[in-house]
Formats: sequence, structure tokens, C-alpha cells
Amino acid sequence: MSDRYERGLDRLRELDAGKIEQIVDGLDDIAPGFGRLLVEFAFGDIYARPGLDLRSRQIATVAALTALGTAAPQLKVHVSGALNAGCTPGEVIETIMQMAVYAGFPAALNGLAAAREVLAARRDAQA
Amino acid sequence: MSDRYERGLDRLRELDAGKIEQIVDGLDDIAPGFGRLLVEFAFGDIYARPGLDLRSRQIATVAALTALGTAAPQLKVHVSGALNAGCTPGEVIETIMQMAVYAGFPAALNGLAAAREVLAARRDAQA
Amino acid sequence: MSDRYERGLDRLRELDAGKIEQIVDGLDDIAPGFGRLLVEFAFGDIYARPGLDLRSRQIATVAALTALGTAAPQLKVHVSGALNAGCTPGEVIETIMQMAVYAGFPAALNGLAAAREVLAARRDAQA
Amino acid sequence: MSDRYERGLDRLRELDAGKIEQIVDGLDDIAPGFGRLLVEFAFGDIYARPGLDLRSRQIATVAALTALGTAAPQLKVHVSGALNAGCTPGEVIETIMQMAVYAGFPAALNGLAAAREVLAARRDAQA
Amino acid sequence: MSDRYERGLDRLRELDAGKIEQIVDGLDDIAPGFGRLLVEFAFGDIYARPGLDLRSRQIATVAALTALGTAAPQLKVHVSGALNAGCTPGEVIETIMQMAVYAGFPAALNGLAAAREVLAARRDAQA
Amino acid sequence: MSDRYERGLDRLRELDAGKIEQIVDGLDDIAPGFGRLLVEFAFGDIYARPGLDLRSRQIATVAALTALGTAAPQLKVHVSGALNAGCTPGEVIETIMQMAVYAGFPAALNGLAAAREVLAARRDAQA
Repeated sequence: MSDRYERGLDRLRELDAGKIEQIVDGLDDIAPGFGRLLVEFAFGDIYARPGLDLRSRQIATVAALTALGTAAPQLKVHVSGALNAGCTPGEVIETIMQMAVYAGFPAALNGLAAAREVLAARRDAQA
Repeated sequence: MSDRYERGLDRLRELDAGKIEQIVDGLDDIAPGFGRLLVEFAFGDIYARPGLDLRSRQIATVAALTALGTAAPQLKVHVSGALNAGCTPGEVIETIMQMAVYAGFPAALNGLAAAREVLAARRDAQA
Repeated sequence: MSDRYERGLDRLRELDAGKIEQIVDGLDDIAPGFGRLLVEFAFGDIYARPGLDLRSRQIATVAALTALGTAAPQLKVHVSGALNAGCTPGEVIETIMQMAVYAGFPAALNGLAAAREVLAARRDAQA
Repeated sequence: MSDRYERGLDRLRELDAGKIEQIVDGLDDIAPGFGRLLVEFAFGDIYARPGLDLRSRQIATVAALTALGTAAPQLKVHVSGALNAGCTPGEVIETIMQMAVYAGFPAALNGLAAAREVLAARRDAQA
Repeated sequence: MSDRYERGLDRLRELDAGKIEQIVDGLDDIAPGFGRLLVEFAFGDIYARPGLDLRSRQIATVAALTALGTAAPQLKVHVSGALNAGCTPGEVIETIMQMAVYAGFPAALNGLAAAREVLAARRDAQA
Repeated sequence: MSDRYERGLDRLRELDAGKIEQIVDGLDDIAPGFGRLLVEFAFGDIYARPGLDLRSRQIATVAALTALGTAAPQLKVHVSGALNAGCTPGEVIETIMQMAVYAGFPAALNGLAAAREVLAARRDAQA
């Protein structure tokens, strides 16, 4: 295993992003090697860079995925990641709401719907 | 003047966003009232909410505008705003670079080009 | 309640957009205050402006949401709103079809699928 | 010449869209036949359909191109087309402003900048 | 029936795209004439042009629909079309994976999910 | 230098993409390390995979960048890359024209404008 892959997995574990590991493994049937590239590049190369804290990185990702509006499954993963990286639920919600200014209300509303699902699932898991 | 407008202007001044005020005033000829709505909603309503710090709000905005790739003039304004809100140039650059993962390399490259212009202009202004 | 909120609700009632009010109320659990901002800005500020008739505003919205292709739930709400604002079903369909020219056939096809659902539901409600 | 092409040109002349004819002719060097397809499909097939008046079609197009944010040259052509189809400048501006709700403020601001250019050029042409 | 329609249907049959014909027929209730325009323009005008082989056209379409991220139903149709035009499953997957570079990982991941469904359905149909 | 970087540079040289190397070097002032990541991931990881020929990869990229409509500088680079990978100018133009079907006429028109510039510059360079 490459250093980048190891480093990427470490970064992923900080996010406790069980779902991302699941997605990565789930890619093996359809696109062998792609899950590894994802871990290596996204987490081993980018997230592992020292210049920005993990909490800020997750706010950036939640904002971008909300604004794009084409990535509901990935937004849910990163709403969860943002909470694991130390964001409060309120901060995640504010980030999504703010996207109404930059990408319009539908983007923000659909982002809030994704966040609601994640928050409800976490509440259920704790109960 | 409404409270929201006053509150929005206060928030704008924290960003020292001379350019936004200029844009707002510049709208009067073509779209009377729209600049006011922008200040009231974006800054008086959204940015004035207490749940997220201004620095994080600017990281979210820089990320989203980079990812969308349709808002170069506004991205430049908010790169500047992010720096005024306490981000280091390195943090802004990391935020933009990270968008390669979520919106592709062209979005990140074009975002970096916008940031380069802003950083150069600020360097010139200080010299 | 603010004037803007009152004015926004009035404008909403013209659209008889029961669904929007439902969405607005449904936001209270996840994003308190955001539904109010939506009514105030979108309907109290923008839709309440005198310079464009409500029917034209709904055609503009149906066109934009079809072209963006990221807002199926909101497109359904505004297909219904367009009909309530005086558009015929045929006019709404033409608006969506025309988006094939500007945003491609997939956008138009997905827009037509959304419209079909709304029209069928209204037919069922009348039966 | 096909009926569709003739019909498309007729529709174009109603828009007095000298610029579109210029664009269509200008395509011959790089993409022979494509200008013809554009006239035939967009204007001969779609715009020629009877179910929606030309003014509403232009409002739909201005809204969509503003919201997409990737088509500034085409937006300018259709701002002009909307005015030729009977929209007032104020109605075009309201249509663009409204896109702040559905596609965010940057889309609306960039749309207003495009409209400002068109309105200024028309004023100059009349002077 | 127009020549363009005939020619479009011929091109469609090469793709053996039963699903497209189904979609076209299914449009008659909601948007009479639109299915015909789709066959005529997309297949009779564009795909029938001699300058690019059908396999390359399908790779282009799969790439574009993956990158846009707003057209999952159409992407599935064209994954199938690409296979019928002579692409191997591996080539389709590589095309989709490559979009991670240009449109980000979420676009590629969602494209792979669409391809997985199509490949599984074809496997089931053969079994 | 990593193997991936070497492999990426090799792949780049096949595209004779002087402009990409220039872009990569030009990134060092603003985003140190990012140019390297681009070469490693895009060319060393993705383009170096054996499952799809370089010509098809370039058609996919030209299609996607045309459809997205947010990446004119990158589209120009890859129009050039497609020609270097063995596409004829006619094939590149057909690929871009086809995007009218999937992303609308403005995307195709703007893509053709980018291609025209590249083809003219290559003609000038040969003269």
C-alpha cells in the first residue's frame, strides 16, 4: 500500500467516515482501482495538506456540494463528516442556509433536506 | 433606512468590502432597489445570523463560488473578504484547491487564477 | 410580524401555493427562521415588486428551474404556481420544451416529467 | 431551403435579431451546417409553435440564461430579443433580478451586467 | 413522415435504444410533438452527420451527461447506447471515471452508480 | 520524482500539451504543489490507465468541458490535445456541436468559439 493511501485512510478515520470507506469498497465491482484513487487523491493528497484545518475543509465541502446541487449522496456523507470534524449541527445548517445567497433557495432547501436526514439518522443511532 | 440594511452595512464593513459597496451603488442605474435587497438579505439577514463565524462564512463562500465556476467577479470580492475576515492567503488557496476534488480541476484552476489577481492587487496596494 | 412577511404571504396566497407554505413550516425543525427569510425575500421583496406580472414571473421561474436541472421539488411547486397564476397547461409545457434549446434535451425531458406529475395530481384532485 | 428554415428566419425577423443572423452566418467557417440547424430547430421548430407568445418565450429564455450563468453572449442577444418582442426594459430587469431567488445573487448580478451593456448600446444606437 | 424523422429512427435503431423510443412515445400525452422533435434533431440532424463515428458520439455523450450530473435517466440510456455502439463496459467505465478530473469525484461516483444499474440489468436480461 | 509524476509527464508529452506544462509551472507561485498533483492524478493516474485510448479520452474531455460551459481556458487546451491525439478538426467540431443536444445551443456555440481560436492559432503557427 502506498504512503498516500495510508495517509488518506488516516485522514478518513479522523472523519470517522464509515460511509466513505463503504463507498470506496463498493466501487470495486464496477470500477476497480477507482476507490483507491479517491482515497489517495482526495484524502491522501488534498485533505492531508497542512494549510487548512479539517473543520474548515468540511465547511468548504458542505458549501460546495450544496451549491452544486448535483451531489446529494456525497453531501450527506460530508454533513456527517463535518459533525465528526467538530462542527455543531447549527454551524452545518448555517453553512447550507448561506448558499441561498450564492446558489439560490432551491439549492439551500435541498441541502437542508439532506442535512435533516443525516441529523435524524444520527439521533436514531444514539437512541 | 431599515434595521436590516443598517445591520447589513455593519457586516459589510467588517469585511471591509469596499468593492461590494461599490457594486451595490453601481446597481442603482440599472436595477434600482436591488443593491439594497442584496445588502439586506445577504448581509443583514444571513451573514448577521450568530450561528457561524465570519471567517467560516467566507471559506464557505469561496468554496461555493469556486465550485460553481460561473461567478469570477464575485469570487474575487470574497477572496478579498476572506482575507479581511482573518483567513491567511494559504487558507484561501487551500480552500480553492480542495474544490478539484468536488468540482474538478478546471474549477480549481480558474479559482486559483481569480485568487492570484486579488493577491497581486493587494500586494500592489500595499507597496 | 414584519410587513415584508405579510406582503410575502399575500403574494404566496395568490399562487395558492399550499405546498410552499407547507415547505416553509416544515423548515422550522431543521433551520429555524429560514422559512421566514424565504417568504420575506422571495415573495415579500422580489415577487411583490410591481414591474412584472405574476404570470410572467412564474414562466421565468419554471424556465430557470427546468434549465438548472437541480431543483425538481421546487419545479413541481412552481408548475403548480404557474397554473394558479393563470398559465394554461400548454403554456407551461411550451416553456419547459423550449429549454431544450438553451439547456439541452435532458433538462427539458426531466422538466416534462416533473410537469406530468403535477398535472396528474391536479387532475386526480379534481376528480 | 426547407420550410423549417424559412419559418425559423421569419421568427427570427420578428425578434429583429440581427445579431443571431450574424452569429448563424459566422458559424459557416468553423461548423458548416450548424447555423442552419440552429435556425431550423430553435426558431423553425420551437419558437414557431403556437402555444406560447413570443414575449413570454423571451422572458423564459432571459430567465434561463441568467440562471445558468454560462451564456453571457447569448443572454445579451436575448435581452435585445425580449425588448424587440415587446418587453419593457423594466420587465427584463425584473426577470433577471428574480433569478437571485432561484440561482443566487451572482447569477443575477452577472445577468444585470449583461443587460446594462445591451441597454446602453441601444441607447447609443438611438442617439 | 419527414426524412429527418426516418433518418433519426434509423440512427436510433443502430443504438438499439429501445428505451429512447419508449421515452419518445411516452412524451405524447404530456408534450405532443416533442418526441418527434427529439428524434429529428438529435438523431436525424446531429447523430446522422457523417463526421464522427457512433462509438465516439456515445463516449462524448456519456462523458457530458456524467459531468453535468443532472441527467441520470438519460445517462443510463446512453451507457446502454454506448455498449450497443461497440464500446466495452470497461471503456464506458473509464470514460465516467475520467470525469473526476473535469467535474469532480461526486459526478464520477454518481455516473458509476448509473452505469452499475445498466450493466446489472443487461446481465440479468442475458441470464 | 514519483513514478506517477513521471508517468503523467509521459502522457502529457503524447498530447504535446505544451500549454498544460506551462499552466502547471505557472501554478507554483500561487499554489505550490498543485501543479504536481494535477499531473500525478489527471495524467499519471487517470490518463495512464490502459482501458481507453487517448483519442477517445480527449473526445470525452472536449465533450464534458463544452457541456459544463465553465472552463473555456481548459477546453482550448484539450481541443489542441484532441488534435494532437489524432482527432481531425472535423471530429472535434462534431463533438462540440453534438453538445447542443445535451447541454443546449449556447454551450455548443461557446465551445465552437473556443475551437475556432485554437484552430486559427495552429494555422498561424504553421504559416
